[in-house]
Amino acid sequence: MEGLTKIDDLGKPRVVIVGGGFAGLELAKALADVPVQVVLIDRQNYHAFQPLLYQVATAGLDADSVVSPFRKILNGQTNFYFRLAEVQGIDEVSRVVETSIGRVRYDYLVLATGAEPNYFGDAQMAKNSIALKSVEDAIELRNTVLSNFEQALQLGDMEQINSLLDFVIVGGGPTGVEIAGALSELRKHVFPKDYRELNFKEMDIHLIQSGPVLLKGMSAHASQHALESLRKFGVQVWLEARVKSYDGYTVTLNTGQKLITRTLIWAAGVEGAPIGGLRPTCLLPGNRYCVDACSRVVGYDRVFAIGDIAAMQSPAYPDGHPMVAQPALQQGRLLGQNIARLLNGQDPLPFTYDDKGAMATIGRNHAVADVKLFGQEFHLTGFLAWLAWSFIHVISLVGFRNRLSVFFTWGWNYVTQDKGLRYIIGKSKTPVREQEVAEKAVV
Amino acid sequence: MEGLTKIDDLGKPRVVIVGGGFAGLELAKALADVPVQVVLIDRQNYHAFQPLLYQVATAGLDADSVVSPFRKILNGQTNFYFRLAEVQGIDEVSRVVETSIGRVRYDYLVLATGAEPNYFGDAQMAKNSIALKSVEDAIELRNTVLSNFEQALQLGDMEQINSLLDFVIVGGGPTGVEIAGALSELRKHVFPKDYRELNFKEMDIHLIQSGPVLLKGMSAHASQHALESLRKFGVQVWLEARVKSYDGYTVTLNTGQKLITRTLIWAAGVEGAPIGGLRPTCLLPGNRYCVDACSRVVGYDRVFAIGDIAAMQSPAYPDGHPMVAQPALQQGRLLGQNIARLLNGQDPLPFTYDDKGAMATIGRNHAVADVKLFGQEFHLTGFLAWLAWSFIHVISLVGFRNRLSVFFTWGWNYVTQDKGLRYIIGKSKTPVREQEVAEKAVV
Repeated sequence: MEGLTKIDDLGKPRVVIVGGGFAGLELAKALADVPVQVVLIDRQNYHAFQPLLYQVATAGLDADSVVSPFRKILNGQTNFYFRLAEVQGIDEVSRVVETSIGRVRYDYLVLATGAEPNYFGDAQMAKNSIALKSVEDAIELRNTVLSNFEQALQLGDMEQINSLLDFVIVGGGPTGVEIAGALSELRKHVFPKDYRELNFKEMDIHLIQSGPVLLKGMSAHASQHALESLRKFGVQVWLEARVKSYDGYTVTLNTGQKLITRTLIWAAGVEGAPIGGLRPTCLLPGNRYCVDACSRVVGYDRVFAIGDIAAMQSPAYPDGHPMVAQPALQQGRLLGQNIARLLNGQDPLPFTYDDKGAMATIGRNHAVADVKLFGQEFHLTGFLAWLAWSFIHVISLVGFRNRLSVFFTWGWNYVTQDKGLRYIIGKSKTPVREQEVAEKAVV
Repeated sequence: MEGLTKIDDLGKPRVVIVGGGFAGLELAKALADVPVQVVLIDRQNYHAFQPLLYQVATAGLDADSVVSPFRKILNGQTNFYFRLAEVQGIDEVSRVVETSIGRVRYDYLVLATGAEPNYFGDAQMAKNSIALKSVEDAIELRNTVLSNFEQALQLGDMEQINSLLDFVIVGGGPTGVEIAGALSELRKHVFPKDYRELNFKEMDIHLIQSGPVLLKGMSAHASQHALESLRKFGVQVWLEARVKSYDGYTVTLNTGQKLITRTLIWAAGVEGAPIGGLRPTCLLPGNRYCVDACSRVVGYDRVFAIGDIAAMQSPAYPDGHPMVAQPALQQGRLLGQNIARLLNGQDPLPFTYDDKGAMATIGRNHAVADVKLFGQEFHLTGFLAWLAWSFIHVISLVGFRNRLSVFFTWGWNYVTQDKGLRYIIGKSKTPVREQEVAEKAVV
């Protein structure tokens, strides 16, 4: 076949996995002892631990602690092959995926491309806001925050200064809550020491939530506690509010209220990140592939989807499982077993989601956690929840070195009450004169 | 005065320091208890520990371990002010510096802008090679190396593959020797595990040195040992050789020999990085300001220069001091004392360089070190030298957290014989099809 990229032919069935997030990576590992060739394709050469990206963005962790290069994690797995490439399409008839490095043949194709921000059709929002789905996003946000403060020092006009000091976070789920909490901590403990010339009492943190509660998927206890804590930490929480528009300077809410900020963080929704080439009918609203209980994309027998990109509908989950880590990990693991079963001529096992609960931090040593154990549900808050959250996240990191590094960094931050990683490295804006700032404000 | 940027007027003499490298930072700290206002201006918001940049470039350390944000290091020093800006010129008559954020008034101006790569007028080399003077350089080199390997997987033509696997390092001083050593270590221990499909016996590392010995400034013992060790580690060392041209693919030496590589690392020379506005006559060849024994720029009484940018000529050092860390640190420290003396109406003290020696690593646990202690000179090599090198570098890092972090990372790397930081984060090239690679080779 023309244009095939070079990959050893092992004479075994080849499982091509597109995307090395929680689902894809777990599947790759689960196939270690299965008589297949595993080919993982990803646009990055590393796995990023998404739950901790907000900490990179708020200078609490360095980027290297939350990423793991695929080749390193799996260099002991002899049936594992990796290709750094962008997958551009699927030719299901010929059983190849089209990629930036050529065509890759498959016997089984597993789509694990995850999710991307959902701006609900608002192109202006997509352009002007910052999301937190990748390491580069996190680094860009960190750089932006620090550069904004440096710029604010040059200004005399209060509205201009506030546009650089204030933050608007859209989305009251775990991501939004965690960022709001982290920023309030920095405002209180860290920024005033670094920027003695700025008045951080002027720094406003707004959290905009479209529904009536924060942390919609968690218990009422957790939602209420998060709301009270954030307000106590000085975050202005707007419930039943939506952003109508944002031009890079002015945020207009559906209530008519206007807020001024140059930093709007979008945490209000994600949708699947599909690849072209399959029938449009297999995509559900939210851009997720419709899959059966064995993760097969409906209508195909060699194409699977797992993780955020897959919507496995059931009575308990009519829109598919929540787009979080646990379903992705569990689906990846089961599909590994099921591929082995298929090769053995056995029927695959259907997936049942073991919901272990959810957690979110709200600041330095404060969290909410709904934990499901032994058939019971525990609602933890405060320091105990934070300990549980820290423990779970450290052991879930990929790679022992990362676990030690994060444990060490958190310990250090806790003891010193500081977050040391306040560098602007990479994409950033050099501060300019006041007149130039005013000119740029007219968008 | 028009266009002055906003900085508090403390009613004290203001010392403006341009550049927060070894010299500028040391001076800022030395002025902590002197009745002045210290204003440090730098294009980055952090100090980068340059001796360890090559380790970031070869994935042995993360970038965050070798940088320290100015605001954090000096947030306890009440007379310290920082501005993130680009300094564009000096108006010595009005006693202001022109910057991207406006004009900054000074009573004393200290230029500590350091050095930049010296391409000896070869603009093509400047464009096609990678130097290692900044964190972004180091990250870009790391990304380039890893991306090149990913690209090599797509190719069948041996010359093309080698162009991506091979390295040419120009410059046989400590930087060139250290990079060559680090790469040889990766070639032996790390890359073959990560990239099982590539044959790293094909990876060539060339080190090009214009003179007859490596590490020209060190003892003959050190030079000879470095040469033997690098050759033993498989580095091809070319002495008495110069690069005539490099077009991004073919390196042509003065001997007529040609080498093929897409990765040429320029470590062959640095020159000062001056700012416009002073008389051209105060710049010596190599673009360093000519200063007297008290670091005053010749012909000015309120303008000083320290570190790499300053050439303090003396019989022992007719071209000024070597452009390394020790003179910079010592000059910064002394100038702090001298400014205090000047304010007290005392004469400043002349500078004498206390040459403590030099060191360079040559691989995982191998170094050469000339140490001057108690009037004696010790020539250490091998593991002992490496221990000394490691110790000196760890304690010299700015910030206790960085010291712990680097100590931990080195310990980990040593025990695991691995360097875990093989991520491509930031600027990089997505691999492409083989035909596209061949097209791009025609520069």
